[in-house]
Amino acid sequence: MSVAVPTSIGVVTPQHFTFAEQALFVTESGVGLSPVTVEYETYGTLNADKSNAILICHALSGSAHAAGVHSEHPERVGWWDDMIGPGKAFDTNHYFVVSSNIIGSCYGTTGPSSVNPKTGKAYGIDFPIVTVADMVEVQKELMDHLGIRRWFSVAGGSLGGMQALEWAYSYPERVLSVMPIATSAGLSPQGIAFNEVGRQAIMSDPAWNNGSYDHTELKPDKGLSIARMIGHITYLSDDSMQEKFGRRGVKLGNVRFGQGHQFEVESYLHYKGSQFSRRFDANTYLYVTKAMDLFDLTAEAGSLKEAFRHTRARWLVVSFSSDWLFPPAQSREIVQGLRSTLADVTYYEVQSKYGHDAFLLETTELTEIIKKFLNRVEIKGESHFGATAS
Amino acid sequence: MSVAVPTSIGVVTPQHFTFAEQALFVTESGVGLSPVTVEYETYGTLNADKSNAILICHALSGSAHAAGVHSEHPERVGWWDDMIGPGKAFDTNHYFVVSSNIIGSCYGTTGPSSVNPKTGKAYGIDFPIVTVADMVEVQKELMDHLGIRRWFSVAGGSLGGMQALEWAYSYPERVLSVMPIATSAGLSPQGIAFNEVGRQAIMSDPAWNNGSYDHTELKPDKGLSIARMIGHITYLSDDSMQEKFGRRGVKLGNVRFGQGHQFEVESYLHYKGSQFSRRFDANTYLYVTKAMDLFDLTAEAGSLKEAFRHTRARWLVVSFSSDWLFPPAQSREIVQGLRSTLADVTYYEVQSKYGHDAFLLETTELTEIIKKFLNRVEIKGESHFGATAS
Repeated sequence: MSVAVPTSIGVVTPQHFTFAEQALFVTESGVGLSPVTVEYETYGTLNADKSNAILICHALSGSAHAAGVHSEHPERVGWWDDMIGPGKAFDTNHYFVVSSNIIGSCYGTTGPSSVNPKTGKAYGIDFPIVTVADMVEVQKELMDHLGIRRWFSVAGGSLGGMQALEWAYSYPERVLSVMPIATSAGLSPQGIAFNEVGRQAIMSDPAWNNGSYDHTELKPDKGLSIARMIGHITYLSDDSMQEKFGRRGVKLGNVRFGQGHQFEVESYLHYKGSQFSRRFDANTYLYVTKAMDLFDLTAEAGSLKEAFRHTRARWLVVSFSSDWLFPPAQSREIVQGLRSTLADVTYYEVQSKYGHDAFLLETTELTEIIKKFLNRVEIKGESHFGATAS
Repeated sequence: MSVAVPTSIGVVTPQHFTFAEQALFVTESGVGLSPVTVEYETYGTLNADKSNAILICHALSGSAHAAGVHSEHPERVGWWDDMIGPGKAFDTNHYFVVSSNIIGSCYGTTGPSSVNPKTGKAYGIDFPIVTVADMVEVQKELMDHLGIRRWFSVAGGSLGGMQALEWAYSYPERVLSVMPIATSAGLSPQGIAFNEVGRQAIMSDPAWNNGSYDHTELKPDKGLSIARMIGHITYLSDDSMQEKFGRRGVKLGNVRFGQGHQFEVESYLHYKGSQFSRRFDANTYLYVTKAMDLFDLTAEAGSLKEAFRHTRARWLVVSFSSDWLFPPAQSREIVQGLRSTLADVTYYEVQSKYGHDAFLLETTELTEIIKKFLNRVEIKGESHFGATAS
C-alpha cells in the first residue's frame, strides 16, 4: 500500500488583471484610482460549475505567490507552500486556489510604489489610504473577472484573516465558508502602537523624503529595517525567543556603539530587518499597516453580532496560544459574535510556542484542522444557503 | 483621634560627591575614568550608629531625585515621592534614605554627556560601556564617603532592582535587607530585542552623528523619541492600553502620511516620546539600556544559588501580574535561587493591570508590603549576620 506524499504545485506564473481603466475605482477613503492592476496566481483547476474556488488572502508582507515555485524567480517558494498543493490542506487536486496581491502592496497590484499615470512617477504618499474593505473590493473584481459566483472558502491569517472577515461581512452570499486565522475584528491599541512606531521609524529616515524616493539612489532602508525588527519581535513569542536565542552571544568588552551587536537575538533582528528592506517598499509598509489599524468590524457594523447577521457560511476560526499580537481572546470574540447569530462555527486554539508566526509554521496541525473542515463544508454543501435563500 | 497623613519631604537640594580624582575608577569593561562625580539626594536623618540608611536605586530614565520637590526646579517632584517621606513606605522620620544617579546617566553623575577632561567635549561614545556592577561600585564609593557600614535596605524597581540584586551578590555583608522589585536576574531576549531596536532608532538618526552632537544645534531627538515610544509600549500592559485608549480617535479620510495621527494611543506615544527627548540624553539611552541587557547574575555567578550563597540579608521580592517586560516568572526564579540557599525571603505577586509601570503606580499596595517588611527587618535586626559571622 502506498500513501500519496504531498508534493509541490511546481512552477507558477503570476497573472495580471487590470480594471477601472475607464470608470474609477473609488477607495473607501473617497479617492478615485485608474487603472487598478491585480497580480494573482491560481493553483489547481476551476471545475465546470466554478464551485471549487478558494481565495487565499495574504498578510502584511505577503504576495500573490502563496504556493509553488515562481516562474521567473525559482528560488522563491510560496509563503504557504506547505498548505497549498496536491494532497495538501488546500488540495489542488480538488480545489481551484486563487491568491492575489492586495491593493496598496508592492508585489504587482497597484499601490504606492506603482507609477501614477498622471505624473509618470510612483504614487508615493499621493496614493490614497486603502482599507481592508478596499482589498476585498479588488478581490471581488478579480472574482467577477474569473466568473466565480461564490468562493468555496476564503482563508487567511493575520491581515489575511481580516480580509476573510470582511468578505463575510460585505458579501455574505458569496462565501460558502470562511477561515479567519490568527486574526482579529480590530487590532488592539498595543498592535496599533507597534505599527505606529514602525511607521515613525520609516518616516524619520531622511531617505524617506516625504515618500518620494523612487527616482533617487537612496531608499529608506534603515527606517524600514527598524520597522521590520519591531514587527519581528511581535511575531515571535517570549518563549520561542528564549528557546531560539536565549541570552547567547554576549561578550563584555569596550565595544563602541554602532560597532557590531552582542547578543544573537540582536544579530538575528538586524539580519531580518536588512533582508526585508531589500525586498519590500517602505511606503507600502505605511499603507498596509495603516489598513490593519483601521480595520474595525465592530465599529463598522455596530457590533459583531450585527456584522455577522447575514452570514450563511460555515466558519473555522483558529488562534494560537502564544500569539500576543492577535491573542486567542480576540478570536474568541469573533466566535462569540458568530455564535450569537447561530452561525455554524468551529473554533480551535492551537497550542503553539511560535507566537503570531504560528499561522505560517504550525502547518501540520493546520492541515489536519482545515482538511476536516473543508470536508465538512463539502458534505454539507450549500444547505445553509438553500434553507435561507430569499 | 487624628491619623498622621503622609506629607512630602519638602524641598530637596541635590548633593555631589567626586572621587577617582587621582586613582582611576576602572569599569568592569576595563576602562579607567577620572574623575567620577555622583549626584545624590538624601531624605531623613542618619542616626548615630549609621544603621538606618536605605539605598534607593533608580531605573532606566530615573535620577537621584526620588522624593520631594527639587530646590532649583520646583515643578519636579521625585519619581517615587509617594513612597519616600514622613510616614510613607520609606519613612523619613525613621530612616535615612539615599538616592544617587547611576554612572552612565545624564542627571549629574558622570556619563556619556559629561565633559571628558581630556578633550573638553562630552564623552559621547568614547565613554566606556558600564554595567550594573559599575553602578553598584559607584554607590559603594558614596556609601563609604557617607560612612555607612551597612545599608538597612537596598531597594529598586526594574534596572533599580538589578542594582539591588548586584549589591547582595557583590557585598553580601553590607546589606541587611534587599528589595528587588519588578526585576530580573537577566533580561529576556525579548527585552534585549526591544532595547536594541530603540538603540537602532537613535543611531539611525543622522543627528546622532556617531555620538557627537553636544556641540551641534541638532540632537537626535527623533530617534530618542522613537526609542521611548517602544519603551512605553513595553511598560504598559495590553489591558491597560485597552482601557486607557481603546481604539478611540480613528477617523477615516484621505490623510497623508506624516500629517497627524489618528488613534489616541498614537498621539499619547508621540507626546511621551517628544517629552522624553527634551529631558533625556540619547547616548545615555544607549549606555543604560546596554547595561540592562548585559546584567546576568546567573552567568556571572554560575547559578542563582551560587549568586546568593553568601547572602545573610532578609529579602522582599515583588512582581506585578501584568508586567510582561519583567514577568513574574523572572521574580520567581530569583525567589527559587534564594530559597535554595535557605535565605529569608518574602515574595509578593501584586495583581495589577498597569504592566511594568506598576512599580511606580501601585504605591498603596507597595507601601503596605514594604512597611510590613521593614518592620520585620527592624525586629529581627542583625540576628542573621550575628549568627553566621565568621
